[in-house]
Amino acid sequence: MKIRPLHDRIVVRRKEEETATAGGIILPGAAAEKPNQGVVISVGTGRILDNGSVQALAVNEGDVVVFGKYSGQNTIDIDGEELLILNESDIYGVLEA
Amino acid sequence: MKIRPLHDRIVVRRKEEETATAGGIILPGAAAEKPNQGVVISVGTGRILDNGSVQALAVNEGDVVVFGKYSGQNTIDIDGEELLILNESDIYGVLEA
Amino acid sequence: MKIRPLHDRIVVRRKEEETATAGGIILPGAAAEKPNQGVVISVGTGRILDNGSVQALAVNEGDVVVFGKYSGQNTIDIDGEELLILNESDIYGVLEA
Amino acid sequence: MKIRPLHDRIVVRRKEEETATAGGIILPGAAAEKPNQGVVISVGTGRILDNGSVQALAVNEGDVVVFGKYSGQNTIDIDGEELLILNESDIYGVLEA
Amino acid sequence: MKIRPLHDRIVVRRKEEETATAGGIILPGAAAEKPNQGVVISVGTGRILDNGSVQALAVNEGDVVVFGKYSGQNTIDIDGEELLILNESDIYGVLEA
Amino acid sequence: MKIRPLHDRIVVRRKEEETATAGGIILPGAAAEKPNQGVVISVGTGRILDNGSVQALAVNEGDVVVFGKYSGQNTIDIDGEELLILNESDIYGVLEA
Amino acid sequence: MKIRPLHDRIVVRRKEEETATAGGIILPGAAAEKPNQGVVISVGTGRILDNGSVQALAVNEGDVVVFGKYSGQNTIDIDGEELLILNESDIYGVLEA
Repeated sequence: MKIRPLHDRIVVRRKEEETATAGGIILPGAAAEKPNQGVVISVGTGRILDNGSVQALAVNEGDVVVFGKYSGQNTIDIDGEELLILNESDIYGVLEA
Repeated sequence: MKIRPLHDRIVVRRKEEETATAGGIILPGAAAEKPNQGVVISVGTGRILDNGSVQALAVNEGDVVVFGKYSGQNTIDIDGEELLILNESDIYGVLEA
Repeated sequence: MKIRPLHDRIVVRRKEEETATAGGIILPGAAAEKPNQGVVISVGTGRILDNGSVQALAVNEGDVVVFGKYSGQNTIDIDGEELLILNESDIYGVLEA
Repeated sequence: MKIRPLHDRIVVRRKEEETATAGGIILPGAAAEKPNQGVVISVGTGRILDNGSVQALAVNEGDVVVFGKYSGQNTIDIDGEELLILNESDIYGVLEA
Repeated sequence: MKIRPLHDRIVVRRKEEETATAGGIILPGAAAEKPNQGVVISVGTGRILDNGSVQALAVNEGDVVVFGKYSGQNTIDIDGEELLILNESDIYGVLEA
Repeated sequence: MKIRPLHDRIVVRRKEEETATAGGIILPGAAAEKPNQGVVISVGTGRILDNGSVQALAVNEGDVVVFGKYSGQNTIDIDGEELLILNESDIYGVLEA
Repeated sequence: MKIRPLHDRIVVRRKEEETATAGGIILPGAAAEKPNQGVVISVGTGRILDNGSVQALAVNEGDVVVFGKYSGQNTIDIDGEELLILNESDIYGVLEA
């Protein structure tokens, strides 16, 4: 099952907490705060402007996005997995290698 | 009797709580929180934009929609059944198989 | 005497409480909450949009309308009868047989 | 002396309390609440829309208007008489015989 | 020294309290509330609308204007005299003989 | 070093308190309240309107401006001097000789 | 790794506190307040106006910007470095030599 988000909404799978350093050392308690990053699962068709035109979103499926500390409260369960529903305006930017 | 919703309003039949697992095991108390999903019964003619044009809604009769935790407070009784009145902006997306 | 509502306002006669079932059995105390339904008595000429055009209302005289629990606070007395003044945006939809 | 109201403002003379019934019976204390009706004394030239055009008001001098319970707080004294300053949006409608 | 108000701002000299009746009788304590009237000293070039056009103000230098009870908090001192800075929207109307 | 303000922002050097009268008499404690006047140091390129056009500001470098009592909270240090950052909408008008 | 900010967002590296004077004298405790200045690392593609056009931002990569005391709360960690996410409207201006 999947979800088709409406308009300027974006479905995001939150990045899992990293509880170990790159070198593999376990950091107990280090993951108390959930990371504000995730992978875009699907995007809406765009934001509807006052003049009726539709502005396509600036993120794409597969993008790794960073979002605000206080975003990510809206969640849905899809096949037992919790996904986030964000608005495009919740997203700060896209991480690039 | 049925209701014809105005403009960007949508009538939704809330999904019933599942109190048993897929395998049929009863989960007592598991349904304390109402599911934020439902089936679209009827949709309005569309949202009226500032320039006077009408934007048709992005959901259709029969769609299974997911909506916010704090939506679904507006209810009406039609032939003894409680239905929800949502705005299109309350809806996160449409579930697809 | 009658009232000609301005713009997007609508005059509604609230449906009387039903204190008996269809079969005629009296339900004492059953009507504690006022029904959020009524019949449209008269409608304004329409909502004025930002571009100056007038959008005719989507309800008509005689329609049975359903409105929000917290609407219906604005009342006027016409010939000794209390009528409601609603905005079109207070109205969820129109009941149809 | 008279006042020329600006734009969408309307000058209204509040209807006097009726402390007797049509049959002439005095109703002591019956007029505790001020009536939300009045006669239009003068109207502004119209509401200025975002596109710069002017929308003439939908009420005229001499109309008997009904307004909200919480409107009518803005008053001016003209030749010793207290008059109300309303916005057109404060007015529910016009009473007609 | 004088002030050139910007856009939709208006400089007003508040009418002095009248502490005597027309017949010259002194009314002690009668002027506790400042009058909400004044003479327009200068007006801005107009309100800028969303479409970029400028709407000239509907009051002119020398007009006697009435304004809201809670307007008139913004003051400036010009050559030792306190003048009011109002927005056009603070003004109810213009008094005419 | 200088600052180029963005859009409708204006950099202002606040007028120094005058602690002596024109005749040179010192007024102790007279300057408790900061004057709401200042000289414009630099102005932004203009306010961007909803239709995308840019509206040039109505004040110029060197103008003496008066601003609201509660404006002037935003300050920056340029070469050890505190300057104010105002929006054009904070400014009441321009003083002229 | 780098971040591509969306629309009117701007990534800024906050200026480090200067704890010594120009002459090299250490000022203990002088840096209690974080400086509201920083260098622009990357800028979004522009602000989307109501008419659907995109307004390019007025700051560029490498600009030294000054921003409000209460901005700069939104941070992201990029390769272990804390960067600020600002909106263009948070920025007062650009410092120039």
